[in-house]
Amino acid sequence: MTEQLPPDVIAQLTGMGTAITPELVATSWAVLRPFHDKVGYTAPKIDRDLAYGDHERHRLDVHTAGTELSGEGAGAPVLLFVHGGGFTGGDKHVPGSPMYDHVGAWAVRNGWVGVTITYRLAPEHTWPSGAQDVAAAVAWVRANIASYGGDPSRIVVAGHSAGCVHVASYLAGQGSGALDGIRGGGLLSGFYQIAEADERGEPELSYFGRRASAEVNTLPGLLDSEVPLIFAIAERDPWFSQGQIAGLTAAWFARKGTVPQVIWSEGHNHISQIGSVGVDDLALGAQLARFVNRVTQ
Amino acid sequence: MTEQLPPDVIAQLTGMGTAITPELVATSWAVLRPFHDKVGYTAPKIDRDLAYGDHERHRLDVHTAGTELSGEGAGAPVLLFVHGGGFTGGDKHVPGSPMYDHVGAWAVRNGWVGVTITYRLAPEHTWPSGAQDVAAAVAWVRANIASYGGDPSRIVVAGHSAGCVHVASYLAGQGSGALDGIRGGGLLSGFYQIAEADERGEPELSYFGRRASAEVNTLPGLLDSEVPLIFAIAERDPWFSQGQIAGLTAAWFARKGTVPQVIWSEGHNHISQIGSVGVDDLALGAQLARFVNRVTQ
Repeated sequence: MTEQLPPDVIAQLTGMGTAITPELVATSWAVLRPFHDKVGYTAPKIDRDLAYGDHERHRLDVHTAGTELSGEGAGAPVLLFVHGGGFTGGDKHVPGSPMYDHVGAWAVRNGWVGVTITYRLAPEHTWPSGAQDVAAAVAWVRANIASYGGDPSRIVVAGHSAGCVHVASYLAGQGSGALDGIRGGGLLSGFYQIAEADERGEPELSYFGRRASAEVNTLPGLLDSEVPLIFAIAERDPWFSQGQIAGLTAAWFARKGTVPQVIWSEGHNHISQIGSVGVDDLALGAQLARFVNRVTQ
Repeated sequence: MTEQLPPDVIAQLTGMGTAITPELVATSWAVLRPFHDKVGYTAPKIDRDLAYGDHERHRLDVHTAGTELSGEGAGAPVLLFVHGGGFTGGDKHVPGSPMYDHVGAWAVRNGWVGVTITYRLAPEHTWPSGAQDVAAAVAWVRANIASYGGDPSRIVVAGHSAGCVHVASYLAGQGSGALDGIRGGGLLSGFYQIAEADERGEPELSYFGRRASAEVNTLPGLLDSEVPLIFAIAERDPWFSQGQIAGLTAAWFARKGTVPQVIWSEGHNHISQIGSVGVDDLALGAQLARFVNRVTQ
């Protein structure tokens, strides 16, 4: 069954404005909360805080059905999800909230293994630490996921917002990590062309510093990549994110003669878009699931 | 339930190439046929060949559940669908096939009234005859649909391929028809910027003649329109259609600071995209339905 939100809830989310403020985050999640409570946002089994590196934020959670028979078959596709948080915040798991266990639970409902990761933050850790951490988490998955019922050769990495930037950076080769086993990338409301330093906002300055755009942009690397990609934009994503999709579409068409696969998340803002997974799947989840199933066939 | 096609069928459709040939049309429909037979492609009641004008092709079919109580309530939303066929061919109904009764049946399953129309063809009838015919059909719907259980103030017009061009032309005001009651437009794999005469193919020459692009382009009118619009592009639509979405996206962003709502029909070619309605709804139908429900609230 494809869950949908009632029209009045969509109207609330759409009406909140597009600026990504702490209030938008809190209110969007509050509006979605009852629906997550109803559907349930925890997988039957969650193995928490497994270390994929030396730093205290090199931690990941593995979400499974809890019924895996080790050694039987090739294992299930793996969805590795990277949270947002403006490069300076966020976590894979906020206790007592659906964030982001709901992505893991949804992955398990789709028959996959879900992996949610936390990574190092700016300003202490700067570009390309995010890409390096995604690469390290993928390496952990390749080495360990079989014992959780996952197939190390069928991994899709997806990220939202700053997490999307890190996933794009990893896929573009900025993290120096191998792409073995990567079947697809889900790039949700992030950005692929970074403003020059003088026009950067605080979050971007804290992560990218004053590096030249040409050094940190991922668009050229994504266009070169042979990994299947799916993008998403929320209807009420801010102007800057909208422009990223416009720029991506133009460059993609110029290079490939096609337009990229972009999910337009109807009715949602930047935050509720990722919150919609599991409770309003036509906005993002259903198409993302179709993509994951297709590329991991 | 959201119908899906098996992966091997999607692989067949994706593998057919992008050129819109008679073979592509025949093979795509042949591949989809068993699924339409299984789901069923006729609404419980179809009133056929109602005249909406003087020409023999001024005919439309009304698809309903057959259980309407006249006079009760405000009536259901109405989806008016305009077929493709390269300006010189096509029909609302090809006897013995799902074309395009399946759109009417799907509309009824969604709780709407479906209207499928046939219109005058080039080379006898040229621009803006298509827009004029859409306008005439809409006028018929406004005057008559209440007796079929439809709400004349909640109409969504949608068209595919050449039918999309006519709907866009109507919405851009080229058919001189009023937009009263129009709540939304569905623009599926058509085009909005027409090549200059020297670069036109046969179908476009037969309909647009040698009129200047600036006279027949609909993009400026669509950007000016206050009617909510949803677009679609098939993954395997040809280069020319892909470029239309790239151009639309750039112009839309420059004008509005957002990107347009575009459904990217995964796994489908130009023909199977519209054929997917009812049998592979994640490719087009589910998102189109969400749009119709939203704008007709």
